[in-house]
Amino acid sequence: MKVHVPRKELSDTLGYVERVIPNRISNPGLHLIKLELSERGLIFSGSNMDIDILAKLSADVEGSGTFALPAQVFSQVVKALPGDLVTFDFESSELEIAAGGYATRLQLVDAAAAPLLHFPDDYEGSLDAEQLGRALGNVRYAAAVAEYQAIFRGVKLELQDGRTRAVATDGFRLAYYNLAETSGLLGDIVIPARSVEEITRLLTHAHRVKGGEVALQLSAPQGGNEGSGGSFGQLSMDIDDYKLNVKLMEGSFPDYERIIPNEFPVNITLDAKVLAETVSRVAVMADRTANNRVDFFIKGGVVQITAEGSYGRSQEALPVSQEGSDPEMALAYNAKYLVDALAPLKGELRLSFSGTTSPSVVVDLSDSGYLAMVVPLRTG
Amino acid sequence: MKVHVPRKELSDTLGYVERVIPNRISNPGLHLIKLELSERGLIFSGSNMDIDILAKLSADVEGSGTFALPAQVFSQVVKALPGDLVTFDFESSELEIAAGGYATRLQLVDAAAAPLLHFPDDYEGSLDAEQLGRALGNVRYAAAVAEYQAIFRGVKLELQDGRTRAVATDGFRLAYYNLAETSGLLGDIVIPARSVEEITRLLTHAHRVKGGEVALQLSAPQGGNEGSGGSFGQLSMDIDDYKLNVKLMEGSFPDYERIIPNEFPVNITLDAKVLAETVSRVAVMADRTANNRVDFFIKGGVVQITAEGSYGRSQEALPVSQEGSDPEMALAYNAKYLVDALAPLKGELRLSFSGTTSPSVVVDLSDSGYLAMVVPLRTG
Repeated sequence: MKVHVPRKELSDTLGYVERVIPNRISNPGLHLIKLELSERGLIFSGSNMDIDILAKLSADVEGSGTFALPAQVFSQVVKALPGDLVTFDFESSELEIAAGGYATRLQLVDAAAAPLLHFPDDYEGSLDAEQLGRALGNVRYAAAVAEYQAIFRGVKLELQDGRTRAVATDGFRLAYYNLAETSGLLGDIVIPARSVEEITRLLTHAHRVKGGEVALQLSAPQGGNEGSGGSFGQLSMDIDDYKLNVKLMEGSFPDYERIIPNEFPVNITLDAKVLAETVSRVAVMADRTANNRVDFFIKGGVVQITAEGSYGRSQEALPVSQEGSDPEMALAYNAKYLVDALAPLKGELRLSFSGTTSPSVVVDLSDSGYLAMVVPLRTG
Repeated sequence: MKVHVPRKELSDTLGYVERVIPNRISNPGLHLIKLELSERGLIFSGSNMDIDILAKLSADVEGSGTFALPAQVFSQVVKALPGDLVTFDFESSELEIAAGGYATRLQLVDAAAAPLLHFPDDYEGSLDAEQLGRALGNVRYAAAVAEYQAIFRGVKLELQDGRTRAVATDGFRLAYYNLAETSGLLGDIVIPARSVEEITRLLTHAHRVKGGEVALQLSAPQGGNEGSGGSFGQLSMDIDDYKLNVKLMEGSFPDYERIIPNEFPVNITLDAKVLAETVSRVAVMADRTANNRVDFFIKGGVVQITAEGSYGRSQEALPVSQEGSDPEMALAYNAKYLVDALAPLKGELRLSFSGTTSPSVVVDLSDSGYLAMVVPLRTG
């Protein structure tokens, strides 16, 4: 059974599939990649329990069959191949991979040893792939890292009629991104932050290659009742030649909207990049064991930013466009949280202060979809 | 006391000095950088015990004095500075660093707390900086890594009349690089491999900036008698605006020349890059726990390269220009050692086989200075 396939396309496709598949052999079968051969080409699939991935690749295939082999070693061989064209020759228990003068024989594994994966046939929803990638990618930083923070280690996706929103928070900061698009699905789901990285990588890639839409489908937890109590087990995506099943987190976000302030006595407008660079620079002196504290003093159209640590102190003044009352407003932030919140922004921002101890809000004046909230540090 | 200095030059110079100075404060004074101000500009210096470094920088200086401060935090501040021009303002116990609207105040430390460093006034030898950098850089890979291998963790520099040679070996492979230049110094010295990296970085940089010579000087161990028994404690270098003292290793290399074979029944000639890529590709299947073994079969102008491991096997045939007898010659190498030996080569190489169990030798047909030796693996 022979397959001829262009080397570059093979290597690119495998790159996406192989990233998902774990290298460790401790979990039987999970380190395997499955290859399905048919006259339409090759289908690769694998899983790490959190994400199932399937990728189609056009190829010149003689015959049909299903095989499995260790994903990492297969991928290493493919990355090392010379030339433009690769030939696979499937024999009883071995796969010969040949390219140029080079040939490798890999031991095949019984395809039944690979995980059994089900991808939906129908996708009831869809969104613009680039937009969904931007929404998830722009808020992912605000998700919690620590194990005990449970549901906050995920990114919530609100699929509503007339709006789609991605939101993440770790209790000290929050970010959301609104899409005016309707996905065609209804439900609130929480995607593990680690899976968000794989999703955004694939959405970005597929968008670059083809543009267009990603098809979406929600389904019940495996073995559970569909939609019982509004909970879903899995988000499935179909884009370009790739399909993903992403396992969702159980539980729900508390009502975060009530903690976002909506009255701001002081607002300043300035360039996002200038603010991020200034905060980073001043924070060099900040004490990492004391929350990377930087102090803001806002008065008369100038923001004075200062930091102090065991080696000394630093300061910088920035002219800003200020609305709202003098006298001087003084508050402190974790510099890292502020810099993270500014990272998705390219142009002018508005930073709005609700008070010295209540949350501040960042909005992007060139992209109304994004909002970030940062809770000031307690001082004094 | 004020200093005005261009930001980019300050940042570049400090980059070289700061790399050497350790970050840990456990060793009192060693984390400090010393600043000397005079009408000629700034002098930075520091040490990690293995290397002392001094760097001069032209600057507009009002006044004179000597100060010290923690190198890492100073360097971080300088890296973060905005604008083109930096102003230092030295006050009683603080240094104010200002650039653009940004200002930092760093606590100064008594200069007496910084290590007391002596750099020679006279340099009796010299070499072309680029050539010395190439000689050391091309053989460094062959130095041993393991602690117990003592002297083999260094690169030997043979300073002879009419020749300069850098050589390194870990017992399984060896590399030397000959310069036809005479340094003007006489002696065999061994430089710790870790220090070689800093030396080559600085030689490359200084050569790129100015070209030309590096001045060299050997001196006795501190507190010892100069040249007693032909042993030196320190190699000093002066290049461009930088000075280095490099602490030398004690002991001497055994006579390595007698183990380099000089009779080769079989020789092959081929492109170095092609061989390195082929060996890397085939070695994907090699067993990392079994010395990354790749097998070579040489016969009739063809080298067949194969590897076998727990996942399968791979092979590739390369046409070569062959001198010397058939029948087939079969031997095995650690793929990593062979690839390391080929890395410095750009064009054609000659690979010479003295036998199936005795060392093979690589020479660069476009650079007669380089020779590498690799000992075949014991097989069967």
